[in-house]
Amino acid sequence: MSATRIALVGIGKIARDQHVPHIAASPHFELAATVSRSNGIDGVPGFTSIAEMMAAVPDVQAVSICTPPRGRLAIVEEAVAHGLDVMLEKPPAATFSEAQAIVRTVAEAGRVLHVTWHSREAAAVEPARQWLATRTIERVEVNWKEDVRVWHPGQEWIWEPGIGVFDPGINALSVLTQILPRPLLLGAAQLRFPSNRAAPIAADLTFADTQGVPVSVAFDFDQRGPQRWDIDVETDAGHLTLGMGASQMAIDGAPVDVGDEAEYARLYRRFAECLATRTSDTDLTPFAHVADAYLLGRRAVVGAFEE
Amino acid sequence: MSATRIALVGIGKIARDQHVPHIAASPHFELAATVSRSNGIDGVPGFTSIAEMMAAVPDVQAVSICTPPRGRLAIVEEAVAHGLDVMLEKPPAATFSEAQAIVRTVAEAGRVLHVTWHSREAAAVEPARQWLATRTIERVEVNWKEDVRVWHPGQEWIWEPGIGVFDPGINALSVLTQILPRPLLLGAAQLRFPSNRAAPIAADLTFADTQGVPVSVAFDFDQRGPQRWDIDVETDAGHLTLGMGASQMAIDGAPVDVGDEAEYARLYRRFAECLATRTSDTDLTPFAHVADAYLLGRRAVVGAFEE
Repeated sequence: MSATRIALVGIGKIARDQHVPHIAASPHFELAATVSRSNGIDGVPGFTSIAEMMAAVPDVQAVSICTPPRGRLAIVEEAVAHGLDVMLEKPPAATFSEAQAIVRTVAEAGRVLHVTWHSREAAAVEPARQWLATRTIERVEVNWKEDVRVWHPGQEWIWEPGIGVFDPGINALSVLTQILPRPLLLGAAQLRFPSNRAAPIAADLTFADTQGVPVSVAFDFDQRGPQRWDIDVETDAGHLTLGMGASQMAIDGAPVDVGDEAEYARLYRRFAECLATRTSDTDLTPFAHVADAYLLGRRAVVGAFEE
Repeated sequence: MSATRIALVGIGKIARDQHVPHIAASPHFELAATVSRSNGIDGVPGFTSIAEMMAAVPDVQAVSICTPPRGRLAIVEEAVAHGLDVMLEKPPAATFSEAQAIVRTVAEAGRVLHVTWHSREAAAVEPARQWLATRTIERVEVNWKEDVRVWHPGQEWIWEPGIGVFDPGINALSVLTQILPRPLLLGAAQLRFPSNRAAPIAADLTFADTQGVPVSVAFDFDQRGPQRWDIDVETDAGHLTLGMGASQMAIDGAPVDVGDEAEYARLYRRFAECLATRTSDTDLTPFAHVADAYLLGRRAVVGAFEE
């Protein structure tokens, strides 16, 4: 089968850092064009709209959308109107309702949609899911703590309502909801808003699964010193630790070899599978948990954020 | 067909004011029992759990759940484990994820679920939906303004995170999403929190439908003087006004006779139809919009709330 001719829509940091090199390395895809109001990729035909692109490069078959979350439904509508299949960088949309509308729109058009959660492709996720499936889970603790100044220097969009510490936090939630055997229910949430920002810089979420197993989650965007992206699971048969964003795994402190394949390599392989089988992958669960955290969250105002 | 033997779970103000009299008046239902930790209904067998009720009154066929939103999944799980069909008072759950879990749980058990939105049964809703279906809508404005002191005197649960002015507001959203022909997308939201409460006392929501028609929504829980539950729709062929919670309708100021059947009479008739056809009605759209309002909402702190 020949490589799918794919276009990148939205050329920012994530597109350049991850999508471009992994499309280039994939046997399944060929980067045919880019769509962006302001940026391009050297050596790739660039356009400012999907319509313009399809007029010039009519054999594009799919788009991978990396724009900021606002306005994605309109982009998806234009893509499927041109017969394109769709892959969506996380978060899928600005609101949960918009994400649901995207899922409906692509389904009604008969195209394939892959709502991606790149952290679910981290090397330890599937081994952890399998290991946990046969154990009795007693307690789960998540610590996802990074310094926004390091990872999002000068990026004001990160402080738009609904984003903040949930930009990395949704990655943790995407892993958590993938490795645990039962759905989670949010019982309480605390959100800490900097006095000069419209999104939280930290959050504590108290979940239980549907059998009552406690799951405590701590997000912090103001972490100086060592950064942490850890999930700890206490079971009746040992302690599972996922480290470095679920790229590393240990059982009772002993490292388990999970390989080191990159998240986006798997992500594009999975999209290729979706296309080959004409099936969509549209799980919105992590996003629903974020919306719930805002819904139930008690708010506290903390000191001003200074870059 | 004989009347369905139904039990009320959660005996508070809404159960006494609406559910008990409308079950009594319905040819389709017979109130067989109540389940409540603290209250009962004179002349009806009362129990403190569904299990206890089913042991004593095993011919109960359905439950109508009117408890506060927290903890509803557990109640629903117990109900379907006893083979009962389920009707849910709004809001369906404490979180959107819990509401989704309820829908899944009842479907997997093969029982019927009716997620109710009583305001959708207001007399003018269906006439308004039909009238709008053939017009071009230009603009929609919602004003849903009541005095919480009058309607929820001394009720502290109303100030739990996630509730506040969205308790009446979700009624407006349930009507709006029923009468308009296209889905709504939230663009921005302003939430005003009293300095001494964890839920907003007022909210302004700016929606557009999927064709860009502007829909502005104002909720206020601090309305002195005349109370308002109004929806105004400007079209190419006249101005539609719904008043008094969509119980009244006018076109270009001229009243339209929509009858005066009570919301809960229709609600129980609809549940009877669901049971007769063994089909569920599980639309969560109004709740998704509430979660989105919290997700996107910019927060302002206003004066303390005094009862």
